[in-house]
Amino acid sequence: MKFGLVIGSVVSTRKAGKLKGLKILVVNYLNENLEKTPNSAACIDTVNAGEGDIVLLCSSSSARLTEQTTDVATDNTIIGIVDSVSHGNKIIYKKQNS
Amino acid sequence: MKFGLVIGSVVSTRKAGKLKGLKILVVNYLNENLEKTPNSAACIDTVNAGEGDIVLLCSSSSARLTEQTTDVATDNTIIGIVDSVSHGNKIIYKKQNS
Amino acid sequence: MKFGLVIGSVVSTRKAGKLKGLKILVVNYLNENLEKTPNSAACIDTVNAGEGDIVLLCSSSSARLTEQTTDVATDNTIIGIVDSVSHGNKIIYKKQNS
Amino acid sequence: MKFGLVIGSVVSTRKAGKLKGLKILVVNYLNENLEKTPNSAACIDTVNAGEGDIVLLCSSSSARLTEQTTDVATDNTIIGIVDSVSHGNKIIYKKQNS
Amino acid sequence: MKFGLVIGSVVSTRKAGKLKGLKILVVNYLNENLEKTPNSAACIDTVNAGEGDIVLLCSSSSARLTEQTTDVATDNTIIGIVDSVSHGNKIIYKKQNS
Repeated sequence: MKFGLVIGSVVSTRKAGKLKGLKILVVNYLNENLEKTPNSAACIDTVNAGEGDIVLLCSSSSARLTEQTTDVATDNTIIGIVDSVSHGNKIIYKKQNS
Repeated sequence: MKFGLVIGSVVSTRKAGKLKGLKILVVNYLNENLEKTPNSAACIDTVNAGEGDIVLLCSSSSARLTEQTTDVATDNTIIGIVDSVSHGNKIIYKKQNS
Repeated sequence: MKFGLVIGSVVSTRKAGKLKGLKILVVNYLNENLEKTPNSAACIDTVNAGEGDIVLLCSSSSARLTEQTTDVATDNTIIGIVDSVSHGNKIIYKKQNS
Repeated sequence: MKFGLVIGSVVSTRKAGKLKGLKILVVNYLNENLEKTPNSAACIDTVNAGEGDIVLLCSSSSARLTEQTTDVATDNTIIGIVDSVSHGNKIIYKKQNS
Repeated sequence: MKFGLVIGSVVSTRKAGKLKGLKILVVNYLNENLEKTPNSAACIDTVNAGEGDIVLLCSSSSARLTEQTTDVATDNTIIGIVDSVSHGNKIIYKKQNS
């Protein structure tokens, strides 16, 4: 999985592949220190994520292995909201109010 | 999914993998701000996209999960036309006449 | 799919994964303007392509979705020969004698 | 597979895709000389790896082919702990206490 | 497929995904001229390759489509030993003693 920061959302009314009714968010990829990278993607949200959340992104055929995305034409799905990340004994990130 | 800008089309008469009859478009990948990136692809169109449209691209085995692309040898399919993209309260893109 | 230019061929007598009898070509990836990129691959040919041809390349599990590559250990298959590419009204490439 | 160095761990309580109960580690990708690269990922651990371990990472649908990750929404799984790596007769890495 | 040069081997006693008993080699990716690239991988060997051999690498789910790698957690498998590569009439590589 990759780390991502939710920065926006997409509206698309004409779409295929059982995407109707699914929320599509714009996500910036983050590195292991949760710093922005040049990469980004439009991802299906399965965990009710919101802008500003740091999330876990799952790509490839595994992006379809959630209840909401079975048989859906998605190659990138938000499958978790990150509460905290630690490097050794050091907590490098902790979600507020979590 | 990735954002893309449709810039052209491909004619290929000698082709395999159930591609006959499917429209193949040339697409420039866009980043999260809908700016061009150095990447591009030839993609199967399933939503009647046209040149100038900003679209959503689905790769990997999920590219086959539309009605038109079942069992088709495609690794990149246009699965949606983008109406608008917002970052927070700011609309960064709105399709004309949509 | 990616655009590619066929530049060579590979001989491999000791091989696995039902590759025996299949032609393996060396292909340079091309960008949306059909200019060379730094990337290349060895690809299974399913459309009788030859050196100098501009072709369409299909990767991932979809590379197996042709008659010749069913259950074959290929991650990159030539699935079409490009006759022409247009950007808007401008034909940027037309195959000779096609 | 890619080589990786385990550098941290992730806590995520709100997650999908049968990820509950699985350990998620932060991993830096290493090159063939086991030097750090700019790439990293959050990976499911199946071999009880710990921080400082050099591991083997498996991506794509194959990331689901372990007992713990069957049908799990993972695109990157730690599938082995590296004991040693040799280049010719030269051992370039040997795990301590292994 | 990608071209690779076998440069080493990996020992891993604690591993998952039916990897037990399979040989894991360290491979440098090569470009279309068989020159080294910055990329590398740890690959399952199915053709009895050795250090110094130039090989063909198959990734994604197709990496499992050999007799030895069925249902194995591999995303990169050596599926052929390269005997020769030609660009047009010019042989750019010929394996010694083959």
